[in-house]
Amino acid sequence: MGRVTVRRRIAHIDERGTRRRPDTLVVEEPLEIRLSGRPLSVTMRTPGDDFDLVSGFLHGEGVVRTADDIVSMRYCADTDTLNVIDVALAEGVEPPDASVERSFYMTSACGVCGKTSIDAIRQKTAYDVRADTTRLDPEVLVGLPETLREAQRVFERTGGLHAAGLFDAEGTLLAMREDVGRHNAVDKVIGWALKDKRVPVTGHVLLVSGRASFELTQKALMAGIPVLAAVSAPSSLAVDLAAEAGMTLVGFLRGPSMNVYTGTERLPG
Amino acid sequence: MGRVTVRRRIAHIDERGTRRRPDTLVVEEPLEIRLSGRPLSVTMRTPGDDFDLVSGFLHGEGVVRTADDIVSMRYCADTDTLNVIDVALAEGVEPPDASVERSFYMTSACGVCGKTSIDAIRQKTAYDVRADTTRLDPEVLVGLPETLREAQRVFERTGGLHAAGLFDAEGTLLAMREDVGRHNAVDKVIGWALKDKRVPVTGHVLLVSGRASFELTQKALMAGIPVLAAVSAPSSLAVDLAAEAGMTLVGFLRGPSMNVYTGTERLPG
Repeated sequence: MGRVTVRRRIAHIDERGTRRRPDTLVVEEPLEIRLSGRPLSVTMRTPGDDFDLVSGFLHGEGVVRTADDIVSMRYCADTDTLNVIDVALAEGVEPPDASVERSFYMTSACGVCGKTSIDAIRQKTAYDVRADTTRLDPEVLVGLPETLREAQRVFERTGGLHAAGLFDAEGTLLAMREDVGRHNAVDKVIGWALKDKRVPVTGHVLLVSGRASFELTQKALMAGIPVLAAVSAPSSLAVDLAAEAGMTLVGFLRGPSMNVYTGTERLPG
Repeated sequence: MGRVTVRRRIAHIDERGTRRRPDTLVVEEPLEIRLSGRPLSVTMRTPGDDFDLVSGFLHGEGVVRTADDIVSMRYCADTDTLNVIDVALAEGVEPPDASVERSFYMTSACGVCGKTSIDAIRQKTAYDVRADTTRLDPEVLVGLPETLREAQRVFERTGGLHAAGLFDAEGTLLAMREDVGRHNAVDKVIGWALKDKRVPVTGHVLLVSGRASFELTQKALMAGIPVLAAVSAPSSLAVDLAAEAGMTLVGFLRGPSMNVYTGTERLPG
C-alpha cells in the first residue's frame, strides 16, 4: 500500500509575515487499470485499497457483478511504482469494448444524432432499489456525518480528501474510505462490499462527504444501495436518477437538518 | 444556453419535523463533444458557456493551441437537447487518436510495462511559466476569494457549484465561470481566454473555489498561467507538477492567510 500523505516544506503567509514550515499533503497518483494486459483506464487516486478501487470501478461500469467475476488482480511487476493493476476477468465476463467505453467514449455506432448522451452514459443496474422497504430514523441519519468525520484519519491533517461511508440502518459504520477523488472513495467502499459479498447492499446508507452527482448516484444504484446521503448539494440529474430508480436521496445532511429530494417514504417523521 | 438551475419540491427535515418546500438545484447534464461528427468524449456539466467549455477542454488536452485551430462549433441539430456539440478543427490540426485518448485511455503501444502512467497523462505545454517574472502582493491575493464569491450568482442559491476565476496581478477579475464539475469551470475560463486571444495568460492568477488537483494544475500550465490559487488543499502531484514547471501554487487561500507550496518568489513579503 502506497503512502497516503507526504510532508513538504511550504511558506505560510499571514499578517505577521512569511514563515517556512512543514505541511502535510494528500498523495495523488495515477492508477492505470488493465484488463488482461490491455490498458482500460487511468484514474487519479490516493494510494490504498487499490484492489477495492479497481473492483468497485469495474462494478460501477457494469463490467463485473460479483467478486467471482474477477479471477485475479496484481500490481504490474515490471514497473517501479504501484500504479498499474492488471485484472484477469472470469471466463464469460465481457470486458467493455475499449473503443466504446461508455463513460468516456462513444462511437458513431451508439451515438447517432437523436440519441441523447444520457442514454449512453447510463448503466443498467441488476437491482431494484424501489423494492427495498428499509425505513430510517431521521435522527440516526443526522448522526452519520459526525461518525464519518471521526473515522477519517487523514482529512484533519491535509484538508484534501473526500470520504465515503457505508452505514446500516441503525447508523453503524461498516466501511469508510478516503480519496482525493470523490468517485474513488465510493468505488473503494463498493469494492469492499463486493469483496465481502454484500452486494446488493440492501437496507444500507451510503454517505458522501461532498456533493451528490449523477455518477455517484449511479454507482450507488449499481450496488443496490437504497439511500444515498450527501453533506452538500445534489445535482439535478442525481435527483432525476434517484427519483426514477426509487432511491432515497438526501442532501445538506448537516447539524440537525437535511433536505430529502426523493424517496421520503423511507424517512417516516 | 440551457438552464443553470431548476426548482424542485423537497422535504426539509429538522427538529421541528418535516416541511415540504421548493428548493433550487444546480443543473447537471451530459455534454457530448464530437470532432467532425465523431464522438470524442462526454462530460457532465452545467449548461452555459458550452463553446468555451469545449475549446478549453480541447486546449487542455493539447488538441488546439489557439482559437484559430477551431473552424466552427455547433450544437448538433437533430437532437432535441443542447447536449451535443460538433467541432470542426482547422486543416492540419490533428484530432487525438480516439483509441489512445491520453487522459482516459492508453493502448499497449504507449503503455509498455515500465513506462509510468504519469508520463502518459502528462501533456506538453507550449509555454514556459518559469520565465514569467510576475510579482504579486500577498494582500491582493487574499482578497481574491471574496471577489470570486461576490461574482458567483448561482452558488448562494444551490450550494452545488465550483467556481474558477481569472484575475490580473492587481486583483481585477477578468472572467468567472461556475460548473457542477471543477474541471469544467476551469475549462470554461480557459476557453474564454482562448477566444479572447489571451493565451498564454502570462501575469495572471487562476483561482479555484475548491482543491488543486494534478489535472487543474496541468490545465493552468497548458494555458501559460503562472499562478494557481485554491481555496482548499492541493494534492501532492499538483505540487510536484507546479514545482517542476516553475508555477506558483497557493492553497488554503482563506481569510488573511495562505500556504505557498511552490514559486514563493512571486509573492515577495
